[in-house]
Amino acid sequence: MSQHFARRMSTVHRSFIREILKVTADPEIISFAGGLPNPELFPVAAMDAAAHEVFQDIGAGALQYSTTEGDAGLRAIIAERYRKRGLTVDPDTILVTTGSQQILDICAKVFMDRDSKVVIERPGYLGAIQAFSLFEPEFVTICLEDDGPNLEELEAAFKAGADCFYAVPNFQNPSGVSYSLEKRKAVAALADRYDALFVEDDPYGELRFLGEDLPSVFSFSEKKGLLCGSFSKIAAPGFRLGWVVAPRKDVYDKLVIAKQAADLHTSTVTQTIMRRYMETNDIESHVALIKERYGRQRECMVEMIGRYFPEGVDITRPEGGMFLWATMPEGCSSMELLDMAIKDKVAFVPGRPFFVDGSGDNTMRLNFSNSDEARIEEGIKRLGKSIASFLK
Amino acid sequence: MSQHFARRMSTVHRSFIREILKVTADPEIISFAGGLPNPELFPVAAMDAAAHEVFQDIGAGALQYSTTEGDAGLRAIIAERYRKRGLTVDPDTILVTTGSQQILDICAKVFMDRDSKVVIERPGYLGAIQAFSLFEPEFVTICLEDDGPNLEELEAAFKAGADCFYAVPNFQNPSGVSYSLEKRKAVAALADRYDALFVEDDPYGELRFLGEDLPSVFSFSEKKGLLCGSFSKIAAPGFRLGWVVAPRKDVYDKLVIAKQAADLHTSTVTQTIMRRYMETNDIESHVALIKERYGRQRECMVEMIGRYFPEGVDITRPEGGMFLWATMPEGCSSMELLDMAIKDKVAFVPGRPFFVDGSGDNTMRLNFSNSDEARIEEGIKRLGKSIASFLK
Repeated sequence: MSQHFARRMSTVHRSFIREILKVTADPEIISFAGGLPNPELFPVAAMDAAAHEVFQDIGAGALQYSTTEGDAGLRAIIAERYRKRGLTVDPDTILVTTGSQQILDICAKVFMDRDSKVVIERPGYLGAIQAFSLFEPEFVTICLEDDGPNLEELEAAFKAGADCFYAVPNFQNPSGVSYSLEKRKAVAALADRYDALFVEDDPYGELRFLGEDLPSVFSFSEKKGLLCGSFSKIAAPGFRLGWVVAPRKDVYDKLVIAKQAADLHTSTVTQTIMRRYMETNDIESHVALIKERYGRQRECMVEMIGRYFPEGVDITRPEGGMFLWATMPEGCSSMELLDMAIKDKVAFVPGRPFFVDGSGDNTMRLNFSNSDEARIEEGIKRLGKSIASFLK
Repeated sequence: MSQHFARRMSTVHRSFIREILKVTADPEIISFAGGLPNPELFPVAAMDAAAHEVFQDIGAGALQYSTTEGDAGLRAIIAERYRKRGLTVDPDTILVTTGSQQILDICAKVFMDRDSKVVIERPGYLGAIQAFSLFEPEFVTICLEDDGPNLEELEAAFKAGADCFYAVPNFQNPSGVSYSLEKRKAVAALADRYDALFVEDDPYGELRFLGEDLPSVFSFSEKKGLLCGSFSKIAAPGFRLGWVVAPRKDVYDKLVIAKQAADLHTSTVTQTIMRRYMETNDIESHVALIKERYGRQRECMVEMIGRYFPEGVDITRPEGGMFLWATMPEGCSSMELLDMAIKDKVAFVPGRPFFVDGSGDNTMRLNFSNSDEARIEEGIKRLGKSIASFLK
């Protein structure tokens, strides 16, 4: 039987990153390929206690079907945490999602027709490229510079009819780049002027270990797009809990419809455990712990790159998040380098999958959140050796 | 700002059922409207223990990102339970999903182009109608008779180019109808002959309290479609854990791609707790308990309908599941009846949303799983009174 698949399936493939992760399961390989938080920092005992309290106090109610919009208590907590960071958000405009990945699927469903023009950064977040691709939009990519997107390219994209811009302004995956204050304001103004929806994905925003926290692009926009968040990086990803803030009622209602069709609602069990955990623990000092650790690991990686990488490899210097981005001289293929690196027992993600136009062959993403300093030193040393012999 | 929405969003609305549930939040209303399992039967203490063991024994691993395919131990348990019921299934052909609702979204993504012809039962499961509608297929409905679908209509649909048939052969939602053995074989043979994909949704199959268990349609098919299952009705729905069996490798791989784009993977937390629960508890005797209770409640509802409903209302007599279906004389609108019933403090779901062609106005769905016998007696008495004055 030759199964007929929908046309949209012909253009998408399994995540290259997830395929690499299978190769790097070998414990001898030091992997900078994944995008995993450091599991040593997961609040296991606190979650154990929270779960027990939920089963004792809420009981069957925590195991039943629940609303599509999400647990009211959890949404209030999310709103309160925004308030502490200076942003006023009505809990009724928050939709809890099954990880922030689900927001990307829902956004594509709600806003993208076939051949809609959607703007993404170059390089762009792979999970968004994958989720959006299933709805067959036309991607318009704009260059991500050291301080944010190239504004001329962004305006040209809006002028050419793009009405949606998806971006990760804080410590972007894959590049580690953050938008400057000026560019945040400029992006908001451009989106407002051209009546475009700005989808601000912010899973890493709280993980700033250098510099000053900056307001969201969302906060500068009059017309308000979407602001997406996640518990994956501040608590643990295995809960699959994210959210989206959608202040405009017409937009919120459409998101709810799409969410309902996707999985009815996000797990009542995980939402109530997370709510209890947030109520009974000091999440801010937990986040401080994560930042301190990731900050040290990033510091170590930058230092070791300085020590062990050959001349001619540029890197970003992220002020937060989990990733750093390296660019080799033009003409060097990080795909080819990967084969050599894996023989040398070190892994990374080649940059090309983050570019929808097939460019970026000389780039790579390095994760620093999931390795301690000893492994970072050894891994970067190995990778430096691989690159050196590759560049010869 | 007038937001541009994708064209697909113009045809879908919030679930009518979920809207009714809000109206029926009034505790004085006896509601047969929902589709909730009886929370008294949720294994709260056993889940509490399972969760504690998971946090103690697995720890951080239960909180980390995990594979898109799903927890290997949980998939082995699902396969083993099929084996006990006479069906051989390779765990590597099982994909764990975020509730069985997610399978419907994924199926639509993978198999349905705009204007693809997809066959559904008349009446059909509302969650499937909603999930599929977002991908704009053409629905071809075939009459669901007392023993299963009208086979002439099914063959005509396949001949007219439909290549996918979605159905709930056991104790269907909304009708409570089950397919006879003969019709199971006939549906499998027709799907094979016309090279169509049969998507068999089976959330209620284990909840048979009358008659003999019958093999799945899937088991009779040479070419194998999809077989979908769920932990929602045998354990608890708040976990959002379902699965799909997809024996054909090309199909499985496409489902994994779509699942990955939708939410990366289903919660590691809920999967590991459910696995531990299944490993350390006697799920079969728990299911027996549910069947015994629902059987009594269904018995009571049928008996009370006999006592309190006026002449001229036909009902199905389900041998399992959670729903019963009532048909009033032609020309009576259950939508109008609902207004009257709510004043009489009783609720149900009008049948029309389960028909994509706008028919079914004289039908209604009654849930018996979520009310004890005293409430069923009182509720059916009230509803009988409403119907009697409505039919006058």
